[in-house]
Amino acid sequence: MTINLAENYGFCFGVKRAIEIAEKTQGASTYGPLIHNSKEINRLKDDFNVGLKENIKDFKPKDTVVIRTHGIVKDELAYLKEQQVDIIDATCPYVTKPQEIVQEMSEKGYDIVIFGDDNHPEIKGVMSYATGNVYVVLTEDELKELPLKNKIAVVAQTTRKVENFLQLINYLIVNYKEVRVFNTICNATFENQDAARDLAQKSDVMIVIGGKNSSNTKQLLSIAKEYCEDSYLIEGPEELEASWFNNKQSCGITAGASTPNWIILQIKEKISELSD
Amino acid sequence: MTINLAENYGFCFGVKRAIEIAEKTQGASTYGPLIHNSKEINRLKDDFNVGLKENIKDFKPKDTVVIRTHGIVKDELAYLKEQQVDIIDATCPYVTKPQEIVQEMSEKGYDIVIFGDDNHPEIKGVMSYATGNVYVVLTEDELKELPLKNKIAVVAQTTRKVENFLQLINYLIVNYKEVRVFNTICNATFENQDAARDLAQKSDVMIVIGGKNSSNTKQLLSIAKEYCEDSYLIEGPEELEASWFNNKQSCGITAGASTPNWIILQIKEKISELSD
Repeated sequence: MTINLAENYGFCFGVKRAIEIAEKTQGASTYGPLIHNSKEINRLKDDFNVGLKENIKDFKPKDTVVIRTHGIVKDELAYLKEQQVDIIDATCPYVTKPQEIVQEMSEKGYDIVIFGDDNHPEIKGVMSYATGNVYVVLTEDELKELPLKNKIAVVAQTTRKVENFLQLINYLIVNYKEVRVFNTICNATFENQDAARDLAQKSDVMIVIGGKNSSNTKQLLSIAKEYCEDSYLIEGPEELEASWFNNKQSCGITAGASTPNWIILQIKEKISELSD
Repeated sequence: MTINLAENYGFCFGVKRAIEIAEKTQGASTYGPLIHNSKEINRLKDDFNVGLKENIKDFKPKDTVVIRTHGIVKDELAYLKEQQVDIIDATCPYVTKPQEIVQEMSEKGYDIVIFGDDNHPEIKGVMSYATGNVYVVLTEDELKELPLKNKIAVVAQTTRKVENFLQLINYLIVNYKEVRVFNTICNATFENQDAARDLAQKSDVMIVIGGKNSSNTKQLLSIAKEYCEDSYLIEGPEELEASWFNNKQSCGITAGASTPNWIILQIKEKISELSD
């Protein structure tokens, strides 16, 4: 049986980069979990002595903090600096960008509209950089309620779908004189999905690796199942069953955005053994 | 029979304003026809001594030129100034705006995209204000061919449909980092169309006044006919036929964008006589 990895799978660029930064910062703690995967958090703790603090007040002078990919609220960053905490910034560059845009456009007098979820840490961070009016919306109905002026700058949460972003933009263009659109959407999530779709079409069995509660992993499973009936979602190698690979010619593997590569490789090896 | 004028008809704000300016500038000449209606051009000549010159070289020092609503190419404006021609600017403010935007954005290093027809005098004028890259397109296919940078500013010809504008904008937003959208579309044409639609639904007979070759008048006729079978396109009162108004309770009147108000009033009076 041939075993193929999807062309894109697992960590995005920003998460890979943040983990590399964390691995080089022994003795530090991340502020909030670096990734939604407890095995990876344990590995960072055990192998690289990188801890995790959930409460900002737990950082003391001379501590080192690793800022995660989502970024951080401006006031919290100021607080950490004030406390003389050493700051290692692993904010994804695709998140730093909308932070900078929001600050600059705000200073230039634009009303800021952010397409995203105001409960998401990325958006809490991005909106904190506004110095004037800032609004976070997910739907056109929410947008219609806003008391906007005629100069509007728009950014998006990096993980949103561009189709939905365009819908909001179109409403603004029809109704306002100037709309300054910064497309800050990152394609990583969709690249994993596209690659899963391609691979599922060529595979007799698909293994999707990731958290069973992770919405992005479940979406990969649902895409895989559309094209390959025998698709399975697992979190680790111990869940694999030999019977899945009986009489199969090809097995495809993909993984959710919070799945570390070392787990993927363990699973690939185990599949190889089982299908021998 | 009741006779009703559409809520919006005839000249737009910019044309009304230009004619008022011309009437106050006796002895001047417009550079190119102020309006596509020879009766109105004759009236300006006969009643206000406002002539028409088609060739810029015919303007001599101390002449007075009236710039029409479409605006003028920057170099031609400079030429007239150089020749010490007195300049009376009747450029529609809705056209001056995209001229200013193109100049400012160009100076700030944006690539300029103009949604419009590069043969139209308005667009020739607007694009002449660019100091860097400027492209005029009508379709998404044309847009895809452009060697654009990541900072793009977009304006539209005032008479374009917003749906088509959005289509181009959406392509740009998906493919470029920053798109600065200035919605310079003017709703006057569409206001006349909407009002014609409303009135036709309440009328037994519709009179559409305007040039038989004018595309905007023909569009009004086609809208009127959708809702009122007995719709007629005429250029002057002499074309009215009494039989059109037999047994009708209500007559609606609308007029194309180049139809002067005095012609509309003559026609209204004639209909009133015929239907007595």
